[in-house]
Amino acid sequence: MYKQILSISQLSVPRVKMAEVEGDLKMLGLWASPFVMRIRMVLEQKGLNYEYLEQDLSNKSELLLKHNPIYKKVPVLIHGDSAICESLVILQYIDENWSKTGPPLLPSTPYERAIARFWAAYIDDKLQASLRGILMAATEEAMTEKVADTCAALETLEGAFESCSAGKDFFAGNSVGYLDIILGSLTVWIRVLENISGAKLLDETKVPLLAEWEKRILTVDCVKKALPSVEKLEVVGREMRAKGY
Amino acid sequence: MYKQILSISQLSVPRVKMAEVEGDLKMLGLWASPFVMRIRMVLEQKGLNYEYLEQDLSNKSELLLKHNPIYKKVPVLIHGDSAICESLVILQYIDENWSKTGPPLLPSTPYERAIARFWAAYIDDKLQASLRGILMAATEEAMTEKVADTCAALETLEGAFESCSAGKDFFAGNSVGYLDIILGSLTVWIRVLENISGAKLLDETKVPLLAEWEKRILTVDCVKKALPSVEKLEVVGREMRAKGY
Repeated sequence: MYKQILSISQLSVPRVKMAEVEGDLKMLGLWASPFVMRIRMVLEQKGLNYEYLEQDLSNKSELLLKHNPIYKKVPVLIHGDSAICESLVILQYIDENWSKTGPPLLPSTPYERAIARFWAAYIDDKLQASLRGILMAATEEAMTEKVADTCAALETLEGAFESCSAGKDFFAGNSVGYLDIILGSLTVWIRVLENISGAKLLDETKVPLLAEWEKRILTVDCVKKALPSVEKLEVVGREMRAKGY
Repeated sequence: MYKQILSISQLSVPRVKMAEVEGDLKMLGLWASPFVMRIRMVLEQKGLNYEYLEQDLSNKSELLLKHNPIYKKVPVLIHGDSAICESLVILQYIDENWSKTGPPLLPSTPYERAIARFWAAYIDDKLQASLRGILMAATEEAMTEKVADTCAALETLEGAFESCSAGKDFFAGNSVGYLDIILGSLTVWIRVLENISGAKLLDETKVPLLAEWEKRILTVDCVKKALPSVEKLEVVGREMRAKGY
């Protein structure tokens, strides 16, 4: 089945004018997924027109199976005949392909990019694992442990913010960049998991810089447009918790 | 502790002439780690002089704790005052920072780069997990399952090779690129795990293109220089298996 996606030659990336490219852009998503929210943020930030197609993972569409035969997951960005999967890969693709549209997502120097990629992986590995642990914690002991893991990960990210932002508003400095988008996509889930656990996670006494950063990021247009409300997401969170996935 | 690394400003990347840069390059490694082997391959391919410092993870060095306080793992590349951790991040850093030295590691178009990053993550997630499963399999049933997982992952990568190489010698076409280096770093481990499991993994009847690719990649200078012998690595593999890690 993977041959369906692989048969799209990498050499056939369409080189067309912006208007045509924009018309050719589709995204397969699930509104509650942070991996999907982050792609929507960047598409909004870059001002790219795209067609958003909400998926039903209990009844996978032909389009999803055709364009992400390996993982059969969202998000998938379909650009002309080319499909791009995995959220961090998609973010970098959008940034590189529309490098002159809107502010750059990744920093300009190789070392700054390395630092951004390092922390992006940290957020997706460590922070997401501990957040998922809270969502699925079946005992009080497990909940306490996962809350502690999450707080520790956020404290580490407080240090990352201090270093990366160098006193400015965002991880990327004066504008919203790669890490702002990636951590930004988790802000509503963090609030939902505070409600579910009863614990303070983004605690201004422990992570004051991130707490201030969260307030700022939630006022940014492209972020606001891509994030659901805490109330709406909490319904999904409690359902996932009840069903055990 | 992370503040030690984070306090290195990203803005202070030294902009010095090549000769000085080369003298400033250190790598912390473990010779048996595929994550380390891949960095050595690229440093050799780019012709960069570096000091290699073998680590003892049972007695972690000050240098390792200082430069990778988050994970305390290898590889770590130390370039001047800057430390870069995580092998895929390091590979991209080397490629971007020495973009005019030797052949490029990543492809030139955003879509081709996205494809390369997608398969790199697949190799490190799916293939590595199944290989590690073989190394640690405690029962015959577990071994059979992990061998099947590995064969399935390699068959998927056979399709990736067919598409990426477009009939040429390597994933990257005519020269060794990102995926060649990443999968190349696993070739000796695959042979070791064939010996341990008694199963054929890189089977020319099932993955003929990868089997031919393996023969070619093992003749490439930068790859040969970075890989240990099957015999030497097998001793380590059997020790890890006996100790359960």
